[in-house]
Amino acid sequence: MPTVGVAIIGNEILSGKYADENTPWLARRLRELGADLLRVAVVPDTLGDIAAEVAAQAARYDVVLTTGGVGPTHDDITFAGVAQAFAVPLHHHPELVAVLRTRMGDACNAAALRMAEVPEGSTLWWDGGVRFPTVVCRNVAIFPGVPSLLRLKFDKVAHRFAGTPYGLVRLRTEATESAIAERLTAAQDRHPTVTIGSYPRLDEVPVHVVLTLESRDAAALEACAEELVAAGVGERLPG
Amino acid sequence: MPTVGVAIIGNEILSGKYADENTPWLARRLRELGADLLRVAVVPDTLGDIAAEVAAQAARYDVVLTTGGVGPTHDDITFAGVAQAFAVPLHHHPELVAVLRTRMGDACNAAALRMAEVPEGSTLWWDGGVRFPTVVCRNVAIFPGVPSLLRLKFDKVAHRFAGTPYGLVRLRTEATESAIAERLTAAQDRHPTVTIGSYPRLDEVPVHVVLTLESRDAAALEACAEELVAAGVGERLPG
Repeated sequence: MPTVGVAIIGNEILSGKYADENTPWLARRLRELGADLLRVAVVPDTLGDIAAEVAAQAARYDVVLTTGGVGPTHDDITFAGVAQAFAVPLHHHPELVAVLRTRMGDACNAAALRMAEVPEGSTLWWDGGVRFPTVVCRNVAIFPGVPSLLRLKFDKVAHRFAGTPYGLVRLRTEATESAIAERLTAAQDRHPTVTIGSYPRLDEVPVHVVLTLESRDAAALEACAEELVAAGVGERLPG
Repeated sequence: MPTVGVAIIGNEILSGKYADENTPWLARRLRELGADLLRVAVVPDTLGDIAAEVAAQAARYDVVLTTGGVGPTHDDITFAGVAQAFAVPLHHHPELVAVLRTRMGDACNAAALRMAEVPEGSTLWWDGGVRFPTVVCRNVAIFPGVPSLLRLKFDKVAHRFAGTPYGLVRLRTEATESAIAERLTAAQDRHPTVTIGSYPRLDEVPVHVVLTLESRDAAALEACAEELVAAGVGERLPG
């Protein structure tokens, strides 16, 4: 199964000006695809921060996705950050330059051409007949930060990140977490291929706890769920 | 000005089951307070990931805030992760044990007492007369993940993170980013104490660009804004 890290290049997120819409969307999509998202980091628009995060994630995960910082303005430095992560220079990619010149005509100035200035050795994913490809440097796929564009571009290449999806069973109880903790620990120990999560819903009436059981092993998932229900830990939620 | 990192302990975020409400809220609040949020990382509920992220952030920022993983169940391992980050053992804090016993009575079982098992040397912030204090290990303040609880507890201790707030001016233009990029770069070079951000709103009609100018230096902020308006880069948005 592909392991995935996400680096959100985002002064605008860290400064509270915009809420990050991309993380929740990517997390749901990667889960549906059966990929394992193991880290999300929101870092400032500074070369050193981008380079350090990308280098660390690229060494650890199969795939790294970045969002943001790929436009033509001074604060768009993701390509430079990824280049620094791998200690490779930037260059104007001939295919990207041609695309921009064709599309923009006379408006294709030096600033616009920064969108074609990518780390040397980058490859281009043209899947799905997009107008502008996804730029990929080693195992790092570079996406825009504008949510609608990110979604469009991600969905074109999503098949590259597919694995075996997880099964999910949810239980509900109005008991306290403390009261069920011992039985949960025992179930977790008996079913190591199932991940059991416990989430108190203190903001809802009545207060209750949602338990999530997740596994790629359907038999283990079902056995774990049945044991917890039989032990009176909770009742199954639909879906 | 205090620099701040945030570590979200959150399998439920990474697996796409719940959207992270705490990051946008904390980012806005820290900005209002004048603290500089410089990193947010969402990490899995595993000891090694929590410990590594907390150790790295604690070495780099004045303050680290963690959210999540402080309940009584097997998946609540934030205290253990922070202890591992600083290579200190866990111990049952007498004051916390007393609070739990008083509040829970007979329901205060071994699982519940895990909520009082904190890194040795932790201090307690009782600000604002809370029923249960915020546990602080060195420069790491440990918060719950349930959004309503996090907000309540953060607001009680927020004064500890106060700095000098930023001024913000926003401009709007229907020009393309490429067309204004050169003038933005020049303005950014002339006003290094102002952070200029450029955010295309491609999802709105008409398509436009929002420019954000931010600084703790009110005179520089105003000068930068006036120059950009005079240069025809954009018009001021209210507020």
